[in-house]
Amino acid sequence: MAIKIGLFGFGRTGHVVAQEIMNDKDLHLSWVIRKSHKDEQEYAGNFFGIKSKQGKIYSALSLSFNVFLKANPVDVIIDFSSAEAIDEYKAAASMGIKIVSAISRYKKDAIIKLKKMSVKTAVLYSPNITLGINFLIVASQVLQQIVPSLDIEIVEEHFRNKKEVSGTALRIARLLGLCKKRHINSIRVGGIVGRHEVIFGFPNQIIRISHESINRIAFAKGAIYAAKWLVKKKKGLHTMEQVMSSDFIKHCISLHKKS
Amino acid sequence: MAIKIGLFGFGRTGHVVAQEIMNDKDLHLSWVIRKSHKDEQEYAGNFFGIKSKQGKIYSALSLSFNVFLKANPVDVIIDFSSAEAIDEYKAAASMGIKIVSAISRYKKDAIIKLKKMSVKTAVLYSPNITLGINFLIVASQVLQQIVPSLDIEIVEEHFRNKKEVSGTALRIARLLGLCKKRHINSIRVGGIVGRHEVIFGFPNQIIRISHESINRIAFAKGAIYAAKWLVKKKKGLHTMEQVMSSDFIKHCISLHKKS
Amino acid sequence: MAIKIGLFGFGRTGHVVAQEIMNDKDLHLSWVIRKSHKDEQEYAGNFFGIKSKQGKIYSALSLSFNVFLKANPVDVIIDFSSAEAIDEYKAAASMGIKIVSAISRYKKDAIIKLKKMSVKTAVLYSPNITLGINFLIVASQVLQQIVPSLDIEIVEEHFRNKKEVSGTALRIARLLGLCKKRHINSIRVGGIVGRHEVIFGFPNQIIRISHESINRIAFAKGAIYAAKWLVKKKKGLHTMEQVMSSDFIKHCISLHKKS
Amino acid sequence: MAIKIGLFGFGRTGHVVAQEIMNDKDLHLSWVIRKSHKDEQEYAGNFFGIKSKQGKIYSALSLSFNVFLKANPVDVIIDFSSAEAIDEYKAAASMGIKIVSAISRYKKDAIIKLKKMSVKTAVLYSPNITLGINFLIVASQVLQQIVPSLDIEIVEEHFRNKKEVSGTALRIARLLGLCKKRHINSIRVGGIVGRHEVIFGFPNQIIRISHESINRIAFAKGAIYAAKWLVKKKKGLHTMEQVMSSDFIKHCISLHKKS
Repeated sequence: MAIKIGLFGFGRTGHVVAQEIMNDKDLHLSWVIRKSHKDEQEYAGNFFGIKSKQGKIYSALSLSFNVFLKANPVDVIIDFSSAEAIDEYKAAASMGIKIVSAISRYKKDAIIKLKKMSVKTAVLYSPNITLGINFLIVASQVLQQIVPSLDIEIVEEHFRNKKEVSGTALRIARLLGLCKKRHINSIRVGGIVGRHEVIFGFPNQIIRISHESINRIAFAKGAIYAAKWLVKKKKGLHTMEQVMSSDFIKHCISLHKKS
Repeated sequence: MAIKIGLFGFGRTGHVVAQEIMNDKDLHLSWVIRKSHKDEQEYAGNFFGIKSKQGKIYSALSLSFNVFLKANPVDVIIDFSSAEAIDEYKAAASMGIKIVSAISRYKKDAIIKLKKMSVKTAVLYSPNITLGINFLIVASQVLQQIVPSLDIEIVEEHFRNKKEVSGTALRIARLLGLCKKRHINSIRVGGIVGRHEVIFGFPNQIIRISHESINRIAFAKGAIYAAKWLVKKKKGLHTMEQVMSSDFIKHCISLHKKS
Repeated sequence: MAIKIGLFGFGRTGHVVAQEIMNDKDLHLSWVIRKSHKDEQEYAGNFFGIKSKQGKIYSALSLSFNVFLKANPVDVIIDFSSAEAIDEYKAAASMGIKIVSAISRYKKDAIIKLKKMSVKTAVLYSPNITLGINFLIVASQVLQQIVPSLDIEIVEEHFRNKKEVSGTALRIARLLGLCKKRHINSIRVGGIVGRHEVIFGFPNQIIRISHESINRIAFAKGAIYAAKWLVKKKKGLHTMEQVMSSDFIKHCISLHKKS
Repeated sequence: MAIKIGLFGFGRTGHVVAQEIMNDKDLHLSWVIRKSHKDEQEYAGNFFGIKSKQGKIYSALSLSFNVFLKANPVDVIIDFSSAEAIDEYKAAASMGIKIVSAISRYKKDAIIKLKKMSVKTAVLYSPNITLGINFLIVASQVLQQIVPSLDIEIVEEHFRNKKEVSGTALRIARLLGLCKKRHINSIRVGGIVGRHEVIFGFPNQIIRISHESINRIAFAKGAIYAAKWLVKKKKGLHTMEQVMSSDFIKHCISLHKKS
């Protein structure tokens, strides 16, 4: 039976996420909640030429989430809205609904809130939920563990007007224990969507792992991957790197046997 | 106590390997065997300004290996000589001496011979024993397992006069199940030492993993890493990808717990 | 006074070209001609929220081009429609209207036709009219002239479903005198928009020049650049590489003086 | 008739330069002057198995350069020694001997000295005399002139222990008018010999030009190229970028005619 999904957020990324959920035969988009009254009571499917009555759109302004959720339960909530939506998760958590948060910038107390909810249900959050970036992160961490003496530098390339350092680059630096001032190199030129590269220097060989975004569908795919993973968990606070590292373990064991 | 190493081969790479073994305080270079009479009875250490009497050089022409090995036992033999040396392993195997073979091109029956010896001792062979290439291989295999629908292409770049397709690229293609004709792209320009890149295409993101060789010390480091890993095994035929995948498992488990 | 432009073609690229022409204060979009009746008699400006009555849309089906052109003369025609439109150029050529053709695939006799028209007016055609690609081509040609012994390889990367070899790569190979079978390497993965790289191998140094497309605005910019260059010419058949090489000469002379 | 060359410097790079000069049939290595007494009165050819009595080695300590030069005149002096050698040029300049200085770091007053000598003879100096880097510089300057609104970033990659920013990167930044603090990104990992990349961002396309050094022969080749160019000049102070830009002009004119 299809996993029932509730989606928070119907902005540019939200649209793409809704579409990808509806295109996935293992998932059912039960509803979409957005902040404004726009498109209220329409079906998300209508926007993409999908006939089935999936993804009815509700406005957060018109409903009491507690009551709504009891009437419209789902298996997993995927959140692509904004940092504030976190306060709505409580009701979901106490009903055992799993939560995938793809919010890119939380303040510190948000993590504490998520931690609390994770006593009651399984919660996953990731500021960059693409499979590609999380693969890059875990592979980089493993390589650093294998050869701790490696020199490591991060290059992140984005469009001209991106002012701050990439949040993903900061996360990579933190997880690899690198000083962000010295080891993150920010390139700002033209219309580059987004590219991250980690360069590893051995004395006599160089390894580079790079990830390039083409469009935001990558986020939708990552969130769906996370939802399918999380639905089997009971409780606990998880990250996308954890999903990825458990995949590494599973596949390396199978490779190890074969080779 | 230091691991006692016997080295087969004292060509250009053999020199580098001998030097790296002597520079590693966990290892002791007991002897070097080479095919010709050149430098016979000298000490490898002399070539690099190392005073200790490590690495006495013997010629295969002047000795019966069986007899020699009984008088000069070691923990691990590292072989950087040539495909023919395999026939000398038998004596070592029956004495329980571990074998690391870094021969780049074996004929098919060689693997059968190694398999037989691995009933008596632990054997590891790898046509490209650098840590970097084997990291690239295992990371690539894992990514392909995680997202089986990925498009994958291999680019290998070498110096102008390298005629055949890179053996390492062929190995990567075989392990990833890619048609070598369609998916290996060979660039031959100028004095490039050696570079391998694997490109992974998601519909909406691209990952690239590349490895560049700077010099042959990388092979020495890889062989030493393999020897340290193998010395703890009792029996069985192993590959460098197996060493690497067991490292991936170990470190991913520890990452998984932390994250 | 603004240069008056007539545009052939109002498909996906045509839309972008029309918009860029209207955004350029040195140009005036006099009219757009498309093959179908769609949007007939509307103004191109309406599609992009531009108020001025620029770019009235006509259907080729509804008009006699000869008569139309006399009533609606322009300085330059830019053609992003299809290979067949070439037969309409004659009338324009005999009126001295300049022609910029950005058609990507002409049959051989088309070039002969363009050649004939170029006796009467200035004609420029380019299968890839972006500034970037033509810079890459001319810089590559110059480098090859400076060091004729260089090894050169071309890598072209495109989305998974692009079946044939990139036309731009073929053009680069032809201009550099490289065998396309041996020296063009085609990578087909995921959703890559388009990337061309030329690799130059000296025995002891490597130069790489790469060009990556982000979207089709690059074509509009190139065509506009060509139109501004061509409007000053009287006659002759030109290519975008010629525009670029004349720019190289102009700027190198000024650099040469300064340095 | 072969161009007679005198070489200053016989360190690691000097050796390579001497060898390349002797391998070039258009050149004759008349002598080598080095600072120490080492190898005095030997022939440079002996070091490379070249039989001809080329490149007799003299020590600067044993001779009065003025007197020496009159007895042993050459067409061009190539200097790979150190910044101090500049004071020996005067005697050469007044004899009309051309000077190619490949010293990488001069103090400011050195340029004034060179300027003065260039009234009497042709002088060329270049802190990085490789053809590759100077091609990269001129091509970058041209592209910036063609599209002045481009975003430009420089990435320079070198071995771990290189402390200061690459002098070549600083030169590129200065010639392109870029703030070195904001636009030079320094990567320090492992054993990378040296790599410079200039990234150009259009709003909708990206161009990258990169140069990678493999070994120091590239410097010898560049100096020889410069010597052959300079020997035809009478007077004046020149740079390698000027050699390159005059080549660009020559070849672009020929391309322009052909295309």
